Amino acid sequence: MEGTVSAVNIASVQFHSRTLGRHVTYTAILPEPRRHGDGPFPVLYQLHGASDDHTAWLVRSRLVDHVAGYPLIVILPDGGLSGWRNAGPREKYEDFVTADLVPQVAATLRVRPGRAAIGGLSMGGAGCIRLGLKHPGLFASIWAHSSGLANAERMRQRGIPETEIAADDPWGVAERLLATLPRPSLPRLSLDCGVDDRLVEMNRAFHAHLEAIGFPHTYTEHPGAHTWEYWDLHVREALRQHAEVLGIRRK
Amino acid sequence: MEGTVSAVNIASVQFHSRTLGRHVTYTAILPEPRRHGDGPFPVLYQLHGASDDHTAWLVRSRLVDHVAGYPLIVILPDGGLSGWRNAGPREKYEDFVTADLVPQVAATLRVRPGRAAIGGLSMGGAGCIRLGLKHPGLFASIWAHSSGLANAERMRQRGIPETEIAADDPWGVAERLLATLPRPSLPRLSLDCGVDDRLVEMNRAFHAHLEAIGFPHTYTEHPGAHTWEYWDLHVREALRQHAEVLGIRRK
Amino acid sequence: MEGTVSAVNIASVQFHSRTLGRHVTYTAILPEPRRHGDGPFPVLYQLHGASDDHTAWLVRSRLVDHVAGYPLIVILPDGGLSGWRNAGPREKYEDFVTADLVPQVAATLRVRPGRAAIGGLSMGGAGCIRLGLKHPGLFASIWAHSSGLANAERMRQRGIPETEIAADDPWGVAERLLATLPRPSLPRLSLDCGVDDRLVEMNRAFHAHLEAIGFPHTYTEHPGAHTWEYWDLHVREALRQHAEVLGIRRK
Amino acid sequence: MEGTVSAVNIASVQFHSRTLGRHVTYTAILPEPRRHGDGPFPVLYQLHGASDDHTAWLVRSRLVDHVAGYPLIVILPDGGLSGWRNAGPREKYEDFVTADLVPQVAATLRVRPGRAAIGGLSMGGAGCIRLGLKHPGLFASIWAHSSGLANAERMRQRGIPETEIAADDPWGVAERLLATLPRPSLPRLSLDCGVDDRLVEMNRAFHAHLEAIGFPHTYTEHPGAHTWEYWDLHVREALRQHAEVLGIRRK
Repeated sequence: MEGTVSAVNIASVQFHSRTLGRHVTYTAILPEPRRHGDGPFPVLYQLHGASDDHTAWLVRSRLVDHVAGYPLIVILPDGGLSGWRNAGPREKYEDFVTADLVPQVAATLRVRPGRAAIGGLSMGGAGCIRLGLKHPGLFASIWAHSSGLANAERMRQRGIPETEIAADDPWGVAERLLATLPRPSLPRLSLDCGVDDRLVEMNRAFHAHLEAIGFPHTYTEHPGAHTWEYWDLHVREALRQHAEVLGIRRK
Repeated sequence: MEGTVSAVNIASVQFHSRTLGRHVTYTAILPEPRRHGDGPFPVLYQLHGASDDHTAWLVRSRLVDHVAGYPLIVILPDGGLSGWRNAGPREKYEDFVTADLVPQVAATLRVRPGRAAIGGLSMGGAGCIRLGLKHPGLFASIWAHSSGLANAERMRQRGIPETEIAADDPWGVAERLLATLPRPSLPRLSLDCGVDDRLVEMNRAFHAHLEAIGFPHTYTEHPGAHTWEYWDLHVREALRQHAEVLGIRRK
Repeated sequence: MEGTVSAVNIASVQFHSRTLGRHVTYTAILPEPRRHGDGPFPVLYQLHGASDDHTAWLVRSRLVDHVAGYPLIVILPDGGLSGWRNAGPREKYEDFVTADLVPQVAATLRVRPGRAAIGGLSMGGAGCIRLGLKHPGLFASIWAHSSGLANAERMRQRGIPETEIAADDPWGVAERLLATLPRPSLPRLSLDCGVDDRLVEMNRAFHAHLEAIGFPHTYTEHPGAHTWEYWDLHVREALRQHAEVLGIRRK
Repeated sequence: MEGTVSAVNIASVQFHSRTLGRHVTYTAILPEPRRHGDGPFPVLYQLHGASDDHTAWLVRSRLVDHVAGYPLIVILPDGGLSGWRNAGPREKYEDFVTADLVPQVAATLRVRPGRAAIGGLSMGGAGCIRLGLKHPGLFASIWAHSSGLANAERMRQRGIPETEIAADDPWGVAERLLATLPRPSLPRLSLDCGVDDRLVEMNRAFHAHLEAIGFPHTYTEHPGAHTWEYWDLHVREALRQHAEVLGIRRK
């Protein structure tokens, strides 16, 4: 009854993050060696939304089944409510991901050297855009679902300090990367959003901005709202892009 | 962004089973008190298939979201490869469920006294039929997906001892219950199977047997095969029956 | 070989904290029903130190064995690096414990109504003193190991806002409770510290303050430093006090 | 407060065992990269006793702290009640360890090629002796605590089939290895037992047998019985032997 045999291995890993100053846990979805060999494998970092934790993609979507065909390690980290930004002294989540998590994963699992993919939903959609565009040396493929893309003005309304806005406003982040890197070196960037999602206007505005500045990307809208039914469906498209960019093939 | 707030709590509980002689773990999906109050709540025991464990329903279906609206505790136990039967001296899983697990859950969580519901897929489909029909004092509602319903002859071919066949052949189990209980006291029984499932003939045969002996039940076939996509879809119908029989209402 | 049978059950519970705005996890050590019956049971909240999480007491001490004889539920929550205080908008851990965790535990497990015990080490030592003395309606017994008892001056040096110092300086917290409650209603309070612990002077100073203001308590020093070997040893004395105050007996 | 920072990472890994035909979980204690670098690291397989599971060494001893100084991966697998033997068609735990687990660990974590160490308590003490002596190509260092060393006669009394006794009686296993391998190629073998342990006579008898046949080994008795207090103390000596044989040094 092969329908019930999972083609992935699932690990939960706890380690001490120097950046956050405390022990944290991430979930890892690992390729089945009998199907995909012993690796090393490229990595996808998949970010949760506000209010969720590192188990959300695991238990609320069917990601483990969608990813089973790919020779890919998927890392589900915990980002608190930080927006995956350096948001205050005890919430330096950008540094956590880039300086602690990425090396920890490389030191623990059978990771292929080179750039990874990054994705996420809602707070994690904005998070993967920011992290991906600020660290093009780490991430080659970005896919953001239903993203909470506050621009500078909205960030200001929420009382976020000007220094953080200057660093993390996605509009500016995209502009700065475009000014820095030649186009062929830009990471592949895709966004999608449900037409009934309260965040759809934000996504349209960001898409318009990318168009205006000439940042190559794909933007798609689909039926649906801010729900796990939507993300469970559309994460499959994200996986196809990541696989293509990372140069792996579905089996 | 309510789409990302889970309306359930998830627990993993480890205890020592006297029947199995060792420590075991089950997953519990618990109603959110802010939505459903403090209980007590009725219980659904949801059984995994061959090769899986107590995490399968959690990570491979979207059960946590489907169940969020119901004031219901869902228990996901581990049944090894036993068929949820008393299958040898160290695999007395029928006794484990009825004599160890049910009291342990009642002693640990805020469980409403009275009968529970039981469901499952594949090996767990046959399992919930057997457990449900052998223990009508414990279970009031049964829903079996894509069940591995070996009859006495097939059980014999697999080398299962005659004493176990006499006890556990589902054909006989149904007959004996029918001979024992008045019809209005029978548990509610439903089965479904995908038309492309290799087990569909078994399910048709069992359905025909239930018809022949006059055991009240519902049998449905749907498009689909022996896959988690199928179970993720049709477990929602099972939840509706269980809620009705248990007298709870979706919020 | 009874030496290897654990007399406790261990649960890991995930829920959505309204105060923190995100999903959190706690560990629960539960009395074995065969040894202690079905309850309800009183609760001990046992707090971790800085850099640790809700698994620290579980894996780094032998608490599960030390507690096995008591009809007591032990809850191990996660407190981040907050000092178990309301330390900024996304770290309201005092409110988390008192407004979210205590009711969640009561709504989920078989908890005896009435006051609980609270204990902890290092950051959690200071945490249990603060929480215990600020919420005498919730906690009847407090035992703090090797506590990080910064006074107002030290809190100021760390840049903690004056409003938080006014609320959480342990010196002031003890004074205010003493001014409010008649002596027989005060929670039982004990502290210990290792003579080679860098925090021992802090503990001596707090002990002297309690003496000076006449707050009934017990203070003990033992050989040892800021290590899990020390805490694994002395948590056993804490359990004896909690049991006495909660009116339960070791079996 | 360095006393509370764990110098290890802890992982829980779930995979599908072909031998057992189902999903299983093991715990891994991993060296902290900041202290020990990125590896690769040698492995110690540490086996639990009857009635326990893969979490027992983690939560009932302080193994995580004892192992923190060593550049060593510790794997805690689950062995059911099998004696870590091939004990019936669905309990082929010897094959599970050697054919499934060892390659899975090597395909997942940063494992140094070459032989590993193996240890255990009670059922796992006998288990590590059997596995270690039957698979000298896999294991170079063996340390067995408080072992349940049933000889052929006792195995017969328990109804174990003659074919299994022929394969797994520890007396015969040791004899056969001695007849096969030159002495310098034998794995390092140590046993200990508490003088108040009900199993001490078994251990003395096995020690006498090893003496009689000239199998190089160390046997020690200590005060104590069949308790976690005993194992938590004496596993530290085992770690020193394993480190020496594996050629790693404590930091």
